[in-house]
Amino acid sequence: MLDKLEISEHFKQLQNNICNALETADTKGKFKEDVWTRMEGGGGKSRIIQNGAVIEKGGVNFSAVHGILPEYISRNILQQETKNENSQTFFATGISIVIHPVSPFVPIIHLNLRYFEIQNPKSEIQKFFGGGIDLTPHYINEKDAKYFHQEIKTVCDKHSPNYYSEFKKWADEYFFIKHRNEMRGIGGIFFDKLSETPEFTIENRFDFVKSVGELFAPLYVSLMNKNKNIPYTEHHKNWQLLRRGRYAEFNLVYDKGTKFGLETNGRAESILMSLPPFATWVYDYKTIANSEEDKTQKFLIKDIDWINFVSK
Amino acid sequence: MLDKLEISEHFKQLQNNICNALETADTKGKFKEDVWTRMEGGGGKSRIIQNGAVIEKGGVNFSAVHGILPEYISRNILQQETKNENSQTFFATGISIVIHPVSPFVPIIHLNLRYFEIQNPKSEIQKFFGGGIDLTPHYINEKDAKYFHQEIKTVCDKHSPNYYSEFKKWADEYFFIKHRNEMRGIGGIFFDKLSETPEFTIENRFDFVKSVGELFAPLYVSLMNKNKNIPYTEHHKNWQLLRRGRYAEFNLVYDKGTKFGLETNGRAESILMSLPPFATWVYDYKTIANSEEDKTQKFLIKDIDWINFVSK
Repeated sequence: MLDKLEISEHFKQLQNNICNALETADTKGKFKEDVWTRMEGGGGKSRIIQNGAVIEKGGVNFSAVHGILPEYISRNILQQETKNENSQTFFATGISIVIHPVSPFVPIIHLNLRYFEIQNPKSEIQKFFGGGIDLTPHYINEKDAKYFHQEIKTVCDKHSPNYYSEFKKWADEYFFIKHRNEMRGIGGIFFDKLSETPEFTIENRFDFVKSVGELFAPLYVSLMNKNKNIPYTEHHKNWQLLRRGRYAEFNLVYDKGTKFGLETNGRAESILMSLPPFATWVYDYKTIANSEEDKTQKFLIKDIDWINFVSK
Repeated sequence: MLDKLEISEHFKQLQNNICNALETADTKGKFKEDVWTRMEGGGGKSRIIQNGAVIEKGGVNFSAVHGILPEYISRNILQQETKNENSQTFFATGISIVIHPVSPFVPIIHLNLRYFEIQNPKSEIQKFFGGGIDLTPHYINEKDAKYFHQEIKTVCDKHSPNYYSEFKKWADEYFFIKHRNEMRGIGGIFFDKLSETPEFTIENRFDFVKSVGELFAPLYVSLMNKNKNIPYTEHHKNWQLLRRGRYAEFNLVYDKGTKFGLETNGRAESILMSLPPFATWVYDYKTIANSEEDKTQKFLIKDIDWINFVSK
């Protein structure tokens, strides 16, 4: 039977593999590790890279925590009223990645994979996986967008014919900055509460999550290598800083992982590693009609079928 | 009897006076005005100054809106369950200011003054004022802190002997970045739901709010003039950008006005004028012991009695 330690060990190993691959690709930046413990049980390893050749700031975080189920989780994450306080215990393990590149032509990427167990006083255990991977290019390139979505779909299709379309739609809903009426980027996949069902065993779910994790490094490294040498000017850099401002808005206002971490007294520095190294806010910025920035702005909408996208 | 239009006219005039005073003090920057209307009723005037001699980015916003009371307000602001949907109407008018200066030695300032009316189907009207003024120096200077708090106390004392101590405490609670375990700055005063009571008429409350509004321009202009010519280096500027990152965190994660505005579909550009022009996030930044930054960091705690503060 699938054991929670097997899952946390897998995420820990995935963290090692991804950090090695990113360091190799970056050629200059090195991850710095901070190990932390959670007073109420468990802890994690935060690995941060700053001022690399390709990566300006990035974090690859692993954690495995446990204890009494915090009220915040049962109310907001599980949407259930806790009847008996302190009656449920939980175990949560996961990996979380955000990479902010130096070049405006290399996209920001985000991955999160998590496993959750809740045990009630009768020792009944609920188990589920959640996560996602999504891309936030400062300049949207249709070929890269198609490639990104195609790679994800290929992985999804190995596990279920419905995963990609379902989880792609979910990402379009989730990575949306409501007050700006725009997507954070080109989306990807997002999924939550993948539990055992007649169709899937929990092992099936884990296999899918493993596949998504293994896709991350080759996929992002190829996008880094393809775009890192494109020359850029201050004009492009300024647009990057504006888009990073929107990224910070999404993470601080909407992101559930960030809210969850801050509300449950998580390690702020680990949670907020997702924030950009530099960002700007310019009042009422408008893109110039038909500029590259304008083209990107127009792509920041839901439900674009990137895989079958045909440029006009 | 005090009329809501008299109050909104007052705030509109206050916006004019403050913008004039800030333009004169800045010598270079000019406010740009955007007039907007709210689909459901009312509207506002946003005035934004960017790239001035002293002010890098600032907003002085006026609004007066009305209509059916949104459910978000009755639930979160008034903490009451709406029994009959669409049964209550509201009127809200206010002025909101945030100024981000160029120099790290000139503090960020924030003012908000607001008036709220709610009318139920029986035409019973609840009326109350809310608001506050607080200072966020990048480098805390004890003399400026004492001066800022003393000026506020003098104004408060003219209206009630309890206002300053009560509202100063409220500001210490409100302007606190919980996940960082630090104050946003040196606080000031914060107050809400000031209604008619046996002790105060609604006119008394309005007189107090007017006094706070009139204090803003002379108080901030004196802090601008005193500090704007202090020479600074890139080192100081970097620290300013870090502190601005914290300011953005507070506004996006905790600020009720921001949340309220975004949740009720307010004009995003007007609401988010409070965000800094440039900001940075550095992983796990630590101040150097006994540095100026360290001194400021140690002052970012609740309950400092700035008026009677004696440097060690």
